[in-house]
This record gives sequence, structure tokens and C-alpha cells, in this order.
Amino acid sequence: MARTAGSFGGVTGPRVLSTAQRLFARHGYAAVSMRQIASEVGVQAGALYNYIPDKQSLLFDLMRTHMDEVLQAWEDEPHPTGDPLAELEAFTRFHVRFHLERREAVFIAYMELRNLDPENLEALLARRKAYEESLTDILRRAKAARLVSISDPKVAAYGVIAMLTGVQTWFKDGGDLSREKVADIYWEMTRGAVGAMRG
Amino acid sequence: MARTAGSFGGVTGPRVLSTAQRLFARHGYAAVSMRQIASEVGVQAGALYNYIPDKQSLLFDLMRTHMDEVLQAWEDEPHPTGDPLAELEAFTRFHVRFHLERREAVFIAYMELRNLDPENLEALLARRKAYEESLTDILRRAKAARLVSISDPKVAAYGVIAMLTGVQTWFKDGGDLSREKVADIYWEMTRGAVGAMRG
Repeated sequence: MARTAGSFGGVTGPRVLSTAQRLFARHGYAAVSMRQIASEVGVQAGALYNYIPDKQSLLFDLMRTHMDEVLQAWEDEPHPTGDPLAELEAFTRFHVRFHLERREAVFIAYMELRNLDPENLEALLARRKAYEESLTDILRRAKAARLVSISDPKVAAYGVIAMLTGVQTWFKDGGDLSREKVADIYWEMTRGAVGAMRG
Repeated sequence: MARTAGSFGGVTGPRVLSTAQRLFARHGYAAVSMRQIASEVGVQAGALYNYIPDKQSLLFDLMRTHMDEVLQAWEDEPHPTGDPLAELEAFTRFHVRFHLERREAVFIAYMELRNLDPENLEALLARRKAYEESLTDILRRAKAARLVSISDPKVAAYGVIAMLTGVQTWFKDGGDLSREKVADIYWEMTRGAVGAMRG
């Protein structure tokens, strides 16, 4: 019980995380009990504490892991350097794709900030800021090269990220638009929003 | 207890609503009890039922009222007709202003959809759809008049609304940017996102 971070090895560990994610996303952190998570995983409530000291740690672990995965995935994403508009396109397509693939995690990342303890919130916001900064940095360089017509790269980054993240509130596979087509549309909108020339 | 909608007259009624809104926004619907709301209002828990049959009705009342107010405020907003780009600008400035003024209500409107009972959810989504449709309609007419270069007015509307709503996650009064300057920036971004000519 003294551990502050989870240890999710073995077969059951990952199931604890995925079950908690699904339940938090569906019902909200506050409405879900450790007992309920244990029951869905199929273990005694007490056994959960072999994996995680408490519900707060479980929430933080999910949110931190999500942000670390976003940051790592963007770092690993092939994207050109030295051409800010090409980087902006890569970021746009990456963000749309990643956020459509991780809906539950994204949902929790936005919904449950208010339920994080102060030091966990601080750690989470630092990661989010790092991610936003990667876009702001692209926009700052695009502005310096006079490739875009934005006045404030930071505000533009907020606007673009909000617009792109919104895709997961309405997109459904099997509808009129493929994920690729949707990414095309969002890239058109992003390029326009920052005042880059339309191709 | 048989009523399905609240009756919030007198002095206490509005305080029940505003207290519930504040507590739901801060802690989440699931984490707040009727007892807690009563205690903050300063009445016995039983007295709350003079105003509202249950917590679900309270949530629905808040969310429905918020959407009805958005719809009414947009209808009342002076905006030119027959000039789709001027209408788009009016919508953009209206949405940014309204959403900065009602942060708690907006937060609940996005966060607590999952906690609505099915028929309440349906009623709420119908209102949201009506609001989105008012923007989609503007964009459809702008497209017909070749004033914008979007392929899909509906997707563009989702993108624009998500971008504009995002303002309430970061904006702080007293910072470098006034509300008016922020609305200017979001109008620039919106105009660009839909491929309208920049002025």
C-alpha cells in the first residue's frame, strides 16, 4: 500500500488498466468503485491492491500513460524537419489518427482532470503543455518564415488542437467518410485556420 | 415526487440550480449527492424535493436550460441575413463570447452527457443538433455562393464549433489578450478554416 505508482505486470495487470479505463470512460471516475473494477476483472477487491495502491493512482496511471504515449508516438512519427508546413501537416494527420484510435483514453484525459490530486494534475498538465508546445513550436517557425499569417502561435495552437480533437466526438467508422478523407478535410481546415496558402 | 420537471421559483429555487451547477462542474455529477446540494443551499435534504424530483431531473434541467439559452441567445443576436460570411462572423463572435460567459454550464454540457437518462439524452442532443445546424446552414449557403472552399459543411461546422468552444479551456481574463482580441483571432482562424478570403 506504500507504493505510489502501479505495477501492472502479468496477465491481470493490463486487464485492471483496461477495465478501469472502460469503466471510467463510461461512468466517470467518481461513479466507479475499486470493488466494481475488481468484479469486472474477476478478482477479489483486495487483490486489486497488489496492482495499485488506490483509485487515484489508477486514474493518474491511465492519464499519464496516455500522455506519454501521445508524446512518444509523435516523436516516433516520421515527419520532415526544416519545412514547417510539412511538419504542420504531419502533426495534423498524426493528431487526428491517434485521437480516433484512442477514444476512451482521450475522453478520460479531458474529462477527469478535475479528479486528479494537485501533484498528479501538475505532472499531467506538464505533459499536455509539452505536447501543445510541439505544435506551437512548428507554428512559431512557420510564422518566422512567413508561411502563415497568425498573430499568436500559442492561441493558434490551442485553436488547432481543439478543432482536431473534436473529430472523436462525431466520427463513426463505416459512415460516408473514411479516416483518411477526414484527415484530408482537417488538414485543409488547419492549413486555412493558420492562414497558410491553399494548394 | 411525480413531477418530471423542476419548478424553481422563489428565492431558493434559483439557488438550488446555481449550487447544483457549481458542484456538478467542480466534482462531477456522479460525485455529488442531493444531501450535499441541500447542505450547500442551507436547507434540509427533504426540502430539495419541493423543487426537483431527483438528481437526474436536476442535471437535465441545467443542461436543457443551457442549450435553450444558447439557442435563444443566437436567435436574439443581431446578425445580418443574406450575407453568409457576415453571418459566419456573427456566429463566431457570438459563440466565443457566450462560451466564455457560461463556463460552468458549458463544462457540464460537454462532460455530463453520459450521465443523462436515454430520453433526456435524446432531448438534449436534439437541441445540440439544432445549434450545430444553424452553423451548418450558414456554411451550406456560403458554399452555394462560392464564398468558402469547404467540401463538407457539416464536418466544417463540427471543426469550427470544436475550435471555438476550446477557448474556454485556456482563456483567462486579465491576461495579455482581451475577450475582444480573442474573438478577433478566432474569427481570423474560422474564416481561414473554411477557406474564405482573408481581408
